[in-house]
Amino acid sequence: MLDKFRVRTDLALEAKESFEQDDVEIKGVVVEEEYDEKREIHITKVKIETEKGAKAMGKPIGTYITLEAPNMSDPDEDYHKEISTVLADHIRNLIDHSEEEQSILVVGLGNREVTPDALGPEVVGNLLITRHVIQEYGKLAMGKDKVNLISGIVPGVMAQTGMETLEIIRGVVEETKPSLVIAIDALAARSTKRLSRTIQITDTGINPGSGVGNHRHALTRETLGVPVIAIGIPTVVDAATIVNDTMENLIEAMEQSDHMKGFGNTWREFDSSEKYQLIRELISPHLNGMFVTPKDIDDTIKRISFTVSEALNMAFQLS
Amino acid sequence: MLDKFRVRTDLALEAKESFEQDDVEIKGVVVEEEYDEKREIHITKVKIETEKGAKAMGKPIGTYITLEAPNMSDPDEDYHKEISTVLADHIRNLIDHSEEEQSILVVGLGNREVTPDALGPEVVGNLLITRHVIQEYGKLAMGKDKVNLISGIVPGVMAQTGMETLEIIRGVVEETKPSLVIAIDALAARSTKRLSRTIQITDTGINPGSGVGNHRHALTRETLGVPVIAIGIPTVVDAATIVNDTMENLIEAMEQSDHMKGFGNTWREFDSSEKYQLIRELISPHLNGMFVTPKDIDDTIKRISFTVSEALNMAFQLS
Amino acid sequence: MLDKFRVRTDLALEAKESFEQDDVEIKGVVVEEEYDEKREIHITKVKIETEKGAKAMGKPIGTYITLEAPNMSDPDEDYHKEISTVLADHIRNLIDHSEEEQSILVVGLGNREVTPDALGPEVVGNLLITRHVIQEYGKLAMGKDKVNLISGIVPGVMAQTGMETLEIIRGVVEETKPSLVIAIDALAARSTKRLSRTIQITDTGINPGSGVGNHRHALTRETLGVPVIAIGIPTVVDAATIVNDTMENLIEAMEQSDHMKGFGNTWREFDSSEKYQLIRELISPHLNGMFVTPKDIDDTIKRISFTVSEALNMAFQLS
Amino acid sequence: MLDKFRVRTDLALEAKESFEQDDVEIKGVVVEEEYDEKREIHITKVKIETEKGAKAMGKPIGTYITLEAPNMSDPDEDYHKEISTVLADHIRNLIDHSEEEQSILVVGLGNREVTPDALGPEVVGNLLITRHVIQEYGKLAMGKDKVNLISGIVPGVMAQTGMETLEIIRGVVEETKPSLVIAIDALAARSTKRLSRTIQITDTGINPGSGVGNHRHALTRETLGVPVIAIGIPTVVDAATIVNDTMENLIEAMEQSDHMKGFGNTWREFDSSEKYQLIRELISPHLNGMFVTPKDIDDTIKRISFTVSEALNMAFQLS
Repeated sequence: MLDKFRVRTDLALEAKESFEQDDVEIKGVVVEEEYDEKREIHITKVKIETEKGAKAMGKPIGTYITLEAPNMSDPDEDYHKEISTVLADHIRNLIDHSEEEQSILVVGLGNREVTPDALGPEVVGNLLITRHVIQEYGKLAMGKDKVNLISGIVPGVMAQTGMETLEIIRGVVEETKPSLVIAIDALAARSTKRLSRTIQITDTGINPGSGVGNHRHALTRETLGVPVIAIGIPTVVDAATIVNDTMENLIEAMEQSDHMKGFGNTWREFDSSEKYQLIRELISPHLNGMFVTPKDIDDTIKRISFTVSEALNMAFQLS
Repeated sequence: MLDKFRVRTDLALEAKESFEQDDVEIKGVVVEEEYDEKREIHITKVKIETEKGAKAMGKPIGTYITLEAPNMSDPDEDYHKEISTVLADHIRNLIDHSEEEQSILVVGLGNREVTPDALGPEVVGNLLITRHVIQEYGKLAMGKDKVNLISGIVPGVMAQTGMETLEIIRGVVEETKPSLVIAIDALAARSTKRLSRTIQITDTGINPGSGVGNHRHALTRETLGVPVIAIGIPTVVDAATIVNDTMENLIEAMEQSDHMKGFGNTWREFDSSEKYQLIRELISPHLNGMFVTPKDIDDTIKRISFTVSEALNMAFQLS
Repeated sequence: MLDKFRVRTDLALEAKESFEQDDVEIKGVVVEEEYDEKREIHITKVKIETEKGAKAMGKPIGTYITLEAPNMSDPDEDYHKEISTVLADHIRNLIDHSEEEQSILVVGLGNREVTPDALGPEVVGNLLITRHVIQEYGKLAMGKDKVNLISGIVPGVMAQTGMETLEIIRGVVEETKPSLVIAIDALAARSTKRLSRTIQITDTGINPGSGVGNHRHALTRETLGVPVIAIGIPTVVDAATIVNDTMENLIEAMEQSDHMKGFGNTWREFDSSEKYQLIRELISPHLNGMFVTPKDIDDTIKRISFTVSEALNMAFQLS
Repeated sequence: MLDKFRVRTDLALEAKESFEQDDVEIKGVVVEEEYDEKREIHITKVKIETEKGAKAMGKPIGTYITLEAPNMSDPDEDYHKEISTVLADHIRNLIDHSEEEQSILVVGLGNREVTPDALGPEVVGNLLITRHVIQEYGKLAMGKDKVNLISGIVPGVMAQTGMETLEIIRGVVEETKPSLVIAIDALAARSTKRLSRTIQITDTGINPGSGVGNHRHALTRETLGVPVIAIGIPTVVDAATIVNDTMENLIEAMEQSDHMKGFGNTWREFDSSEKYQLIRELISPHLNGMFVTPKDIDDTIKRISFTVSEALNMAFQLS
C-alpha cells in the first residue's frame, strides 16, 4: 500500500545501491547477480544474514530477489509470458516444500480505487481460486492427484475499512488456516527508472514503516504464524526523490559559474542519506500525503497484474 | 449475495403474502402495518415470535421491517433524503442501546463485479468510516463527546475468495471485537414489482438457504457472537417467478376456449407453493445459475446504495 | 447493447434453426457447416442472398459466421488463444482488402456499468490502439512497412448520453474517415445453451430492432458510408425464452394425466413463433425491461473480451 | 486531461499571482474579488480584455471565475450543497440566454481509468441526461413548459481512442447540434494548496498547451462553432512545482551559513518564471510523463464530481 512511502525505499536493491554510492561495504549482506541474456532480465539476490546487516540495510533478515526487466511495461504478450515463467520459478524456490500440498492465501494489498495502488487487488482478481471447489468436491474436481488450495482476499486500506490490514488478515488466517500467505503490493521506489520494470520477491513478508523493529502492523511469520512471501512492484516514486535528483542536476549546472562553487562544496559534504533527509524536511508538509506516478499507469497496472497472476497460477500447479 | 436465490423469497413480507393468498392464518406471527402518507412509504412490521411461526414462515424468530417506497428508484434527491431519514429511525430502533457507544462493523455482501449484486460493496464505499481515526486520535478528533466506532469490510464472494463469507467475517470479528455487525445485501424477490422499491431490515442476521435450521454459513448472533442486523434490498427476481406469473396469465387467456377448461381446473388444484415448486422442477437446469434483473440496474444501484449509506451515517450519529 | 432484445434473437443461426424446427426450407439462404475437430469449434456460415431470404430470416442480406466453442467460458488460456486465431482468420476474410492499408475504427457498444453489457467496452479497452502514434511519428514508429491505423471508441448507451449511438458514431466517422468500422456488441440469445459459447461475425453491421426495414438507427454501410463488420456474443437470454422452454416441459409432464391431453393438442397447434409471440404478450409488462444472465457473468465477460481483442489485434497485423 | 500539464498552470488565478509576486501589473486584465463569509468561499473573477493581456497571461481573452473553498474536500454534505448552489449561479451567468431553451452537450474529459483524471467522466456519470427522453416523448415527459435538452459524452483520452478529443467532439457536435458545450476537466495546479479546493469556470473553452495561439486541438467556439464553457478543478500538481518550492525552502535554510549567501543571491536574480523554467529543464526527462497527486484522491474525486454534477443539474433547470 502506498501509505508506506514514508519509507526511503521499499526495494532492498536500492538500499544496497545507496551504500555502494557512498563506497560503504556492509557485513552480513551477500549479493549475487545474474543476467538472463535471452530474456533480458537482470536478477539480483540480496541475502541479509545477520542482525547487523539488517540494521545497516533497514530491512529484516531474509532473502530479497529482484527481477529487472526493462521492457516489462511494453504490451508484448510473449515477453510477459517469459517474465511470468521466470517469476514462477523464483516463487516456487521460496516456498517451503516440507508439506507437499499447501493451502495458500494470496492477499492483494492496496486501494483498488487509486490506480497505482490497485496492483494487489488486480492480481487477486486474475487468480485461479480453487479452495472452495476442492473443499466441496475433492481433488478430483481439479483432475489432479495433488493440488494446492488457493484462496484470495482484498482487504482494502485503512481509510476504507477503519481496521489495520493486519487485523483483517490475522482474523482470516486464524479461521481458514492457510500454510502460507503471499502478499502482493505496490511499492515506492527512489528512482523513476525502476518504475513498472522491477519485481521484488522476499520471504520476509511485508514490513511497513522502517522495516526493522517496528513489527506492530507487519504481515510476517511473527504476526501471522505462517510463512509470508511478499511480491512487490514499484508503481510510484517518493516526491523527495524527485527534488533530490533535480538538485544534483541544478548544482552541476550552476557550478560552472564562479561564485556558486561554494554551494556545491557544502552540498557535497552531506552523504546521500543526509541530503535525502534534509530535503524530506524542507519539502512542503502537503507533499507527505502525495505520490508521483506515470500518466500511463492504468495500462501498466493492467499488464503487470496479469503477468504476476499468471506467474502465481504457474507456481501453484503441482505437476 | 445473489447465490442465495435457491430461496423462494428473501422477503418476510412475501412469505407472509403467500400465506394470505391461500387464506391461511399463521400462529406466532404478528403483523403491523403503517402508511406514512406524506412520504408515500408503506411500512410493515412482521414479528415471528414462536418456533412454530418460524417454521411456517421459513424464517427465524425475530423482527422484519419492510419499507415500501414506490418512487425509490426515481432520481429525486430530496425524496431519497426522506427515505434515508425513515430508514435511519428503524435501524436505530433495532440497535440494542445497553452500551451507549458501540463499535459497529458494516459488512457489504455481494460481488462488486456483477451490477445487481454490488449493492453491499457500494454502501460500504459511501460510509463514513471512523474507527481508525478515533483509535489513533481519540474522540476529540471527531469533535464529539460520544461516538460510535465505524468499520467496514467487503469480503467478496466465494468464487473470488475461495472462502465462506462466514469464515472471513468471523475472523475479522474475533480480531476487531465489534459490539454489533450490520450486513448489507442484495436480495431476490418473487415479484418484479418489489424490485428496487423495498427495503427489509431485520435483527435476525443473514440466513442463506432455507433460513431455518441451516445455520451452517449464516451471519447471526449464534455464528458471530454479537447481534447482527441485516439490511436487504431486492435487485433481482427468481426465474421461476417469471414463468409462474406468465402461466397464470396464459391459463386465464386460454380458458376462454372450450376444451381448455380442464387444464385450468387441474392447475388450480395446486396451491401457490406447489405450483411454484412444480415450475422450479420443470425449469431448465441451466437457469439455476441465472438471474433476472432490470436493464437500468446500474443507476438504481448507484442511487439506492447512497440512500442506505446516508441512513447508516445518520443512524450512527450520537446526538 | 442489450436494449435490443425486443428482438426474437440476435443470432442468424437461431433464426435458421427455428425454421428447421418447423420443417420449413428457405429460398435465398445458403448454409455451410464445418467442424474443427482438433479445436472442438463448430463453424456455421449462413449466407442470405436474396431479399426474400432476408425477409424470411428477419435479417438483412449478407454473410453470418457463427463459431460455437462449448468450452469458451472455461479459464483455459491456451484454448482461448486457439479461438482467437480462428476468429482472427474469419475477421480477416470479411475485410475488403482492395485497400492494402486501412484505417479501422472499433466501436465498443453497450453499457460498461452493467456487467453482461460491458463486453464491447472491455474489448476496446484491451485493443492495441495505433492511429495517433502513426499519425504523429509515421509507420516506422511501429517498426513496419505496412500498417493499419487502429482507433477505438466506447460511445455509451442512450440513457447515459441522451444521444443515439448512430449520431455519435456517424459524427466520429465523418471527422476521422476510417475505411472500415468494426462494432462489438453483447447479444441476446433464445437459448441458454448458447450463452458465452457462441461468436457471430457478420458483414451486415448492427441492425437493432427487427433487422430488416428499420434502418433508422442501424450501424451499416448505408448509415455510415463505410463497410461495417459486427462481432456479437450472446451474454443474456430473453425472458420469454425461459417461459417458453418451461411451458414445453410442463405440457409434456402434464399430458400423462388424462384430462390434460386437450391442452397439449391446442398448444401444439401453434407453430414455434406463434407460441413465442403469445408468451411475449402474456408476460408481465415489467419484464420488457429485464434480462436473464448467468451469475458468473463477470468472469465470463473478462475472459471473452480478452479473446476477442486478441483476435482483433492478430487480424489487424499486416505481415 | 492531465496530459496537458506541460502547461505552467491551468489556472488563470495562478497566472495572475505569478505576476503579482514579481510586482508586475498587467494591462488589459481586470480582477474582481469577493468573499462569501457565510460559506467561506473566496471568489475571484479575472477578465482578460485585450490581446496584450492575453499574451501576458498566456491565456485567451475571456472571463475566468475561480471559487476557492478550503473545506471542499471534506465529507460535509451540506457544505457541498452550498458550493453546488454558488457554482450553479456562476454557470448560469456564463450561459448566453438569447435562446430560452438550449441543447447542452456536457463533455467529460480525462481518463476514467486513472483516478485523478476521472473527474470529467464521473461528473457526466452523475448528470441528469434528458435529451433522448424529450426528443421521444416531448417536454411534458419532464412535467415542464420550458426545458433544456441535456446530453453527455465521455470521449476517452488519445491513448485509448487513437483520436484527438477535438475530432470526436466536433463530430458529435455536427451530428447532434447542441447550442452550448460544457467541458469538465481535471487540471494541474502550481501549488499543492489549491488541490481539490478550487473550481475554475471560464467561457474560453479548453485550450491545451500554451493556451494562446495553439488552437489546433482546442475545444472552443472557433473549433466547435458553438460557445464552450469549461469547468476545471486541479487534482494534480506539476512535478517542477514541487522541486521549485523545496528549493526556496532549502536556500532560505542554507543562507544561515556564511558561504552560502552567494548562492541565494544568484538564485534570487532569476524571476519566478525563469526559475521555474530552469527547473523544468533540469528535472529528469522521465518526470515529464508523471504527475503528483494526493493519496486520498479517490474520495476527493467521488465527492467533488458529485458537487459539480449537482451544480450542473441545478443550473440546467428552467424555473
